[in-house]
Amino acid sequence: MEFKKILEEKSDSSWELYLPHLSVDCVIFGFEGARLKVLLTKMKEKNLWALPGGYVLKTENIKEAANRILQERTGAENIYLQQFRVFSDLNRSEGFFEEFEPTLWNKQRFLSVGFYALVDFSQVSLVVDSISDACVWKAIDELPELMMDHRSIFDKALITVRRQLNHKPIGLNLLPDKFTMPELQRLYEIILAKKLNRGNFFRKILRYDILIKLDESRKGGAHKAPDLYQFDLEKYEMALRNGFNEGW
Amino acid sequence: MEFKKILEEKSDSSWELYLPHLSVDCVIFGFEGARLKVLLTKMKEKNLWALPGGYVLKTENIKEAANRILQERTGAENIYLQQFRVFSDLNRSEGFFEEFEPTLWNKQRFLSVGFYALVDFSQVSLVVDSISDACVWKAIDELPELMMDHRSIFDKALITVRRQLNHKPIGLNLLPDKFTMPELQRLYEIILAKKLNRGNFFRKILRYDILIKLDESRKGGAHKAPDLYQFDLEKYEMALRNGFNEGW
Repeated sequence: MEFKKILEEKSDSSWELYLPHLSVDCVIFGFEGARLKVLLTKMKEKNLWALPGGYVLKTENIKEAANRILQERTGAENIYLQQFRVFSDLNRSEGFFEEFEPTLWNKQRFLSVGFYALVDFSQVSLVVDSISDACVWKAIDELPELMMDHRSIFDKALITVRRQLNHKPIGLNLLPDKFTMPELQRLYEIILAKKLNRGNFFRKILRYDILIKLDESRKGGAHKAPDLYQFDLEKYEMALRNGFNEGW
Repeated sequence: MEFKKILEEKSDSSWELYLPHLSVDCVIFGFEGARLKVLLTKMKEKNLWALPGGYVLKTENIKEAANRILQERTGAENIYLQQFRVFSDLNRSEGFFEEFEPTLWNKQRFLSVGFYALVDFSQVSLVVDSISDACVWKAIDELPELMMDHRSIFDKALITVRRQLNHKPIGLNLLPDKFTMPELQRLYEIILAKKLNRGNFFRKILRYDILIKLDESRKGGAHKAPDLYQFDLEKYEMALRNGFNEGW
């Protein structure tokens, strides 16, 4: 079915189900192949990429809304997510629906609550919804042009993750259960957008005493197999409560 | 005029002027007499304290709304303010207006965007609005019971200020133009909720090189007059961009 018709068909029930003027946009981060990636959808007929988003049911709070939207897209439950900012500029979205009747649900003014989510890449199976024809991971240094103000929503999410690296379980939620020290360092480097000295990073991480070194190493590859680590959940949580005060 | 009548009289124009379901609540911090204080209003007839708040005009974004609300209360312009969280629980406010008609503006479900504001205490002159009979500063360690979920809005604001102490100009906006080192340390201690060693604090602050020592000292008092300092705005801003990575 064409894009316009789908929106028009959904409009009446949207007015009934959702709070007006309020939307949720999700910046979903995943870490794969030593790259930080973000989940994007592509709108049918329009050659435009967008962050996955949705609306808030009259019977739920915004975190429940974000969880529901995430689950619909990724099939995953209990995803780590945090709201980080409301985007409320006039005409941030209305112009996109110029061709439609003024009564169309999507054409009203929307203020959008931005959430960021951190997912374990291996746990996700993507779902393409009825108004999209693609739902894919894109590396954050190779993002296509995004619709509306979604680029600034993404930028703000990344800055927030960077600032929260020292007091939220960012690493825990992006890495698989077992990981190597170079993988952990690479994740920190991408989020902080700077190279870190290997020896310093290693020493600081060990001083925080939040890792358990496992009695196994990564298989495959010609080089010496790197050691595998896990987070010590109890110690990690305690360290986050105090904050990693040293910086990187 | 009585509380109920005032709300009923305002209701129709509120439905016309404002976005439904959306409010703004402001946690306004000031620093006076070595104490961190927050601005509270007292509702007419109800013996209930609240954070100053208001609604979002259909023609403004939420920052403009918060600025307008702050100016109405404090007379001050260009106040430093930051949104920090949306409070969206079901029934967070509706129950408060049980006795009223369902069409009353105030009785709908509201999601509230929390802003914190930092003001120079000496620049503010308080205004009591039509539904309040008091508007006063209260020390944060002696807050009265607050209505609805305003206590958790306040708690979250304080945690946010604490976390942002190293990358937002918190000190600059709370202190008067000229201040002593003990005043600066005291402000940091209150926000961080812990005692700091005087020598360490002094050394760290000087190492960041963000202060200008003035050629004058605080007059009055029997003891040796303490030196006065100002922030070096250019260096302070640069230091904030990098973040104070050492912690306190």
